Amino acid sequence: MNDISNYFKSLQEDICQQLSIADGDTPFLVDDWKRPEGGGGTSMVLTGKKIEKGGVMFSAVEGVLNEKAAKGLNIPAGDFFATGVSIVLHPSNPFSPIIHMNVRYFEMDNGLWWFGGGIDLTPHYIDPEDAIFFHSGLKKVCDLHDPSFYPTFKSWADDYFFLPHRKETRGVGGIFFDRLVAAKKEDKESSFDFVKAVGESFCSLYIPLLQRTYDRPFNDLNKKWQYVRRGRYVEFNLVWDKGTKFGLETNGRTESILVSMPPMASWEYDHQVETGSPEEFTLSHLKKGINWI
Amino acid sequence: MNDISNYFKSLQEDICQQLSIADGDTPFLVDDWKRPEGGGGTSMVLTGKKIEKGGVMFSAVEGVLNEKAAKGLNIPAGDFFATGVSIVLHPSNPFSPIIHMNVRYFEMDNGLWWFGGGIDLTPHYIDPEDAIFFHSGLKKVCDLHDPSFYPTFKSWADDYFFLPHRKETRGVGGIFFDRLVAAKKEDKESSFDFVKAVGESFCSLYIPLLQRTYDRPFNDLNKKWQYVRRGRYVEFNLVWDKGTKFGLETNGRTESILVSMPPMASWEYDHQVETGSPEEFTLSHLKKGINWI
Repeated sequence: MNDISNYFKSLQEDICQQLSIADGDTPFLVDDWKRPEGGGGTSMVLTGKKIEKGGVMFSAVEGVLNEKAAKGLNIPAGDFFATGVSIVLHPSNPFSPIIHMNVRYFEMDNGLWWFGGGIDLTPHYIDPEDAIFFHSGLKKVCDLHDPSFYPTFKSWADDYFFLPHRKETRGVGGIFFDRLVAAKKEDKESSFDFVKAVGESFCSLYIPLLQRTYDRPFNDLNKKWQYVRRGRYVEFNLVWDKGTKFGLETNGRTESILVSMPPMASWEYDHQVETGSPEEFTLSHLKKGINWI
Repeated sequence: MNDISNYFKSLQEDICQQLSIADGDTPFLVDDWKRPEGGGGTSMVLTGKKIEKGGVMFSAVEGVLNEKAAKGLNIPAGDFFATGVSIVLHPSNPFSPIIHMNVRYFEMDNGLWWFGGGIDLTPHYIDPEDAIFFHSGLKKVCDLHDPSFYPTFKSWADDYFFLPHRKETRGVGGIFFDRLVAAKKEDKESSFDFVKAVGESFCSLYIPLLQRTYDRPFNDLNKKWQYVRRGRYVEFNLVWDKGTKFGLETNGRTESILVSMPPMASWEYDHQVETGSPEEFTLSHLKKGINWI
């Protein structure tokens, strides 16, 4: 554990405390785990009222990055250290959006290091007002650090959170960034400050969206649609998400990786939506390049 | 269309007719599709009483196998033709097993050809009697063609239908084979005869298992466990199944590929089973190398 992983651990605890209160004082399950090859983590899992299933995962792991894994990252092999916080929340109400955040730090014993991260919002039903609120908040966080960040990282998220086999984005996007290193490489603090700001924005970006939707009335069709959209979330995570694939293929901790899976999802052959319906509105907005602000 | 694809088309129709009757005269939805690059198929989909969701898919496609795809198959690029039948049935009752079958033929314009296929059974609750019935039936089909087939293809299925990230087999296995070419390469009929025998065994291997379980009483725990096991089925298909991955990554027909997804599945963090329960019995038998006969 170093300053960065200590920070991520406290970020996890702070976010869990706020989410626990927002859900109506529902406690998180706390599961500490060790990694045989070095390091470990704490998985915090919520089975709540407003949040049907939520995972807020911290890890700080170290070990040898073998030739194959190093080649995958396009860096020399050696000893590595990686730490971060990952969150996926699946709300109960179909009108509440799914949220994902990841903030992470990676370093090698040869002095190489970088930060990465992202937040993206996946509404079952797209509400443009929510998307505007979410993207405006992200832009504000980015602009305080570098005016080029929001447009660059927003577009990166559009490309990353995309299902080629459905020709759909996962949701309304957000920001995504990787291998973030300050312009002056020695100045690790400035990159770290940005990552902190992203992490600390999470609750203020999501909790208001949850609070204004969690008790909205819904019918069977809305619930069925939520299950279908959750099925798409599963498809993205298991087929296209690099982190999930890498974790499962390299003997990562399965339960911590797959806590991102929804509590219940469904698949129907060739599902069709009604013309002019809110479901069709949502599908027609699962596109790259929408400027929500 | 040639003799082989004509045969596969008639096999699809015959299997659908028998499944339709077995389900209580439930008709299949019939969806013909064309592939822009050449060929097409017919997806037949059942939303039934005993079978909650079933897909029996036929396709016969042709086109150019590009350098990358050819490299993946370790053969020279050129024009290809591929045809086959794929089946996945998700039954309603948790005590009825999921079944999968695939029989296929592939050829290149340079004269290269092979058959492939497999059948495997995925019970939510393992019943050794069902597994013995299923494997004995498969052995009988194999032995009529070559006494080495059953042991070789049974072991191949154990290795193929395996989830490394769960250290579990998908179910009780079955048989799997690929690049099947007769000892005398000219003698295509003998390989084709074996593949026909596998395809024609499907109904007699599965329908009896369905008929003796479809009306068995079950409780909420049984249903919940069915959803958890279906979640594992999703994980196998999206993360490990070569056919699914290849199809999704090469612009295959998404609806026909993902008809294998269950109608409803669930994920729970670190799901645990009771000591001495039928769920624990099942988990303890999701292992390679069990000789069921």
